[in-house]
Amino acid sequence: MIQAQRFCNFAYHNNKTHSLHYMQIIKYPEKEIWANLLTRPTARLKDIEKKVKPILKRVKKKGDKALLEYALELDKAILTDLLVSKEEIAEAKKVVSRSLKQAIGKAYKNIEKFHLAQKEKFKPVTTMTGITCWRKSVPIQKVGFYIPGGTAPLFSTVLMLGIPAKIAGCEQVIMTTPPNREGKIHPAILYTANLVGISKIIKAGGAQAIGALTYGTSQTPRVHKIFGPGNQYVTAAKQLVAKQGIAIDMPAGPSEVAILADETANPAFIAADLLSQAEHGIDSQTVLVTTAEEIIYKVAIELEQQLEKLPRKEMARISMTNSRCFLVKDKQEAMDLLNEYAPEHLIIATQDAHLLAENVINAGSVFLGNYTPEAAGDYASGTNHTLPTNGFAKAYSGVSLDSFVKKITFQHITEEGIREIGNVVQTMAEAEMLMAHKEAISLRLRHLQENEQK
Amino acid sequence: MIQAQRFCNFAYHNNKTHSLHYMQIIKYPEKEIWANLLTRPTARLKDIEKKVKPILKRVKKKGDKALLEYALELDKAILTDLLVSKEEIAEAKKVVSRSLKQAIGKAYKNIEKFHLAQKEKFKPVTTMTGITCWRKSVPIQKVGFYIPGGTAPLFSTVLMLGIPAKIAGCEQVIMTTPPNREGKIHPAILYTANLVGISKIIKAGGAQAIGALTYGTSQTPRVHKIFGPGNQYVTAAKQLVAKQGIAIDMPAGPSEVAILADETANPAFIAADLLSQAEHGIDSQTVLVTTAEEIIYKVAIELEQQLEKLPRKEMARISMTNSRCFLVKDKQEAMDLLNEYAPEHLIIATQDAHLLAENVINAGSVFLGNYTPEAAGDYASGTNHTLPTNGFAKAYSGVSLDSFVKKITFQHITEEGIREIGNVVQTMAEAEMLMAHKEAISLRLRHLQENEQK
Repeated sequence: MIQAQRFCNFAYHNNKTHSLHYMQIIKYPEKEIWANLLTRPTARLKDIEKKVKPILKRVKKKGDKALLEYALELDKAILTDLLVSKEEIAEAKKVVSRSLKQAIGKAYKNIEKFHLAQKEKFKPVTTMTGITCWRKSVPIQKVGFYIPGGTAPLFSTVLMLGIPAKIAGCEQVIMTTPPNREGKIHPAILYTANLVGISKIIKAGGAQAIGALTYGTSQTPRVHKIFGPGNQYVTAAKQLVAKQGIAIDMPAGPSEVAILADETANPAFIAADLLSQAEHGIDSQTVLVTTAEEIIYKVAIELEQQLEKLPRKEMARISMTNSRCFLVKDKQEAMDLLNEYAPEHLIIATQDAHLLAENVINAGSVFLGNYTPEAAGDYASGTNHTLPTNGFAKAYSGVSLDSFVKKITFQHITEEGIREIGNVVQTMAEAEMLMAHKEAISLRLRHLQENEQK
Repeated sequence: MIQAQRFCNFAYHNNKTHSLHYMQIIKYPEKEIWANLLTRPTARLKDIEKKVKPILKRVKKKGDKALLEYALELDKAILTDLLVSKEEIAEAKKVVSRSLKQAIGKAYKNIEKFHLAQKEKFKPVTTMTGITCWRKSVPIQKVGFYIPGGTAPLFSTVLMLGIPAKIAGCEQVIMTTPPNREGKIHPAILYTANLVGISKIIKAGGAQAIGALTYGTSQTPRVHKIFGPGNQYVTAAKQLVAKQGIAIDMPAGPSEVAILADETANPAFIAADLLSQAEHGIDSQTVLVTTAEEIIYKVAIELEQQLEKLPRKEMARISMTNSRCFLVKDKQEAMDLLNEYAPEHLIIATQDAHLLAENVINAGSVFLGNYTPEAAGDYASGTNHTLPTNGFAKAYSGVSLDSFVKKITFQHITEEGIREIGNVVQTMAEAEMLMAHKEAISLRLRHLQENEQK
């Protein structure tokens, strides 16, 4: 809202900014004000932390009992058991339609193929005679997934986290997801969880689920790393437990897409892609950057028409008021602006998309050309959809096979090797005034010398 | 201290635990109590956070002025300029000895060689006809290093962070390090920083340096990711700014080594390796696990003798009281215990070291055999020495080339590709009740159909 205000004020000043239907249009902005124009709304995590801390504490202390109480209080569900039973999974298998099973199966294969290609084959490196160093990817033993409940059953996220975890070889994969008022989990989620080989499914949502995965309860094994999207409570809880030594996938914010379009882009496709972001929630972020002014007006008309047909149109409409549209002088400026924004998803709908792709510095995942909608990557093309939002793409990668392994380094030094490197280490250790480090080398060198003399 | 107490109590009960010189010896512990025996002392970050928060705030508000004031207050240094000058670097080049330069040069080459081998060559994957997915490593543009000051000038850490940053191609590398009372930085640090191509060196230490890298000041560019070790204030500051969206290398704790020794190990070498950990600080952690009881007594005698000769013997002596020695029944149990501990450094000094290495699940970096001391990896063999402590090796990797890049995914879908995958995405989107996602596909398919009919 502050954002919208700023645009309006700005419009009065120079007449270069105005709103068209739902979009705020900014023409040829000066580089100095990009950062301001690209600001995302900041979440007030501090207030939320205050609510989340006692929940974590209570789960740590009371375990399953706390989870059952929170299920009643927050999910309005009377649970007899926190653990999803074999019967519930068998039931889910029956309920999920054949066509959905087939679709999930095809998506599975593509995601598996792309993540299998991420396996590292590291050949040992001889850095000096007698010194061999290598690294090895070893699976994180216990991982936990948080899958949100609510209206949209995000079984696609189960695929996106479960498949790389399976390829990595994680020993235990624990999933938590909030039950509905009948104490049930959506069958598509259960079906997919079973398909990717999840070990245990716990009926728990919100910060309390993060607490369970962090501290463990009788039913929930404690894990080493927590993955998955969630609301602000879940996000705040993940950040709090991260300080206690539990690894998390990445900090999370509202989902976002940026589209770079030139005159060859299809306005209807652009509008559809913007709307598929906007339907995620009222805080979703959409940005359109173009070198072709007419595209803006055509997209605006398309948005109006397409929006009307959507079941989630009210939410999408609110979300679209956060939408910003930039007209820039050329494609290089467009790329500079987009790299400054660092979008979670970046669609490049231009004739020279492949060429421009070379200039991407900050983005989570990039979609090239008119027939590469974000929706394809969200579900089925093979790439992961768990991506850095909120500008975190400047430093973070999306979830990949790497997220489920530790890359442990190894080294072996022979007698010849220690003779080669001994003096180097001694000199450096002495300069750092760490004499025991030096002695660890000297002792070995003396030992070798004595052996030689024998 | 609590730890030591626990051992003593335990000793009274079953006579299986006692202290020998500096080492606490635990014989054949039951698996149930491993977790307790392996507990690390917990840092009281909460109290420290209270002190760190106002420092961060002040730096955010007052910028360079705050840095100059803190330099005076905390480092007792009157600074005229925060930025290290060209003259200071030229002076450092003159002062550093030729032998140290040569040693640094050799270490540089080894570290470079090992980190160059970490470059990913990712071949595009065709997941379905017409669908191509790939990923690309793109450098994080701006990174910041924190290098501690104090008695030991950690120029080796400058190598360990600077070399992979250079290989990755990070555009700006900013280093902060506290000045001494004369307002100077140790010449070995300046020399090395210049060697690895660091863009700017700021004279600032503690939480205030982390604040400067996070918020930026007139002299300090704000960065996207912060690396480097530090005291509890630095650690607390890093964790606090991580919640504000700045990436950090990893959570940090006191340094630690675990050694697995059998009867073929050399007790003098083991003692030297334990002491080179102990000299880091009074909170350093050392663990010895062995299947050969006589090794324990021999190591204890060696420790006594070697300790006397160390300049830092007082510190090492205190640190060694935290040391624990486990006698276990066989090597598999030893590995299980060590995987439970998840040491930062693991030395396997056994005849079958390479075989046992296959069983390592949780460790930062592993050193195999009698002639592979940790000191070699700390300085010069090629592997990185910035590693996960405090059990974080269960989920975190050490610093590597990966730490300086984002792996961005890309995809391109042809008209044929969207026809292949269209139905899969439509079905899944509908099941997740995200109709705009479905429409983004439907629209494209309709468009293709219409074009065909023309």
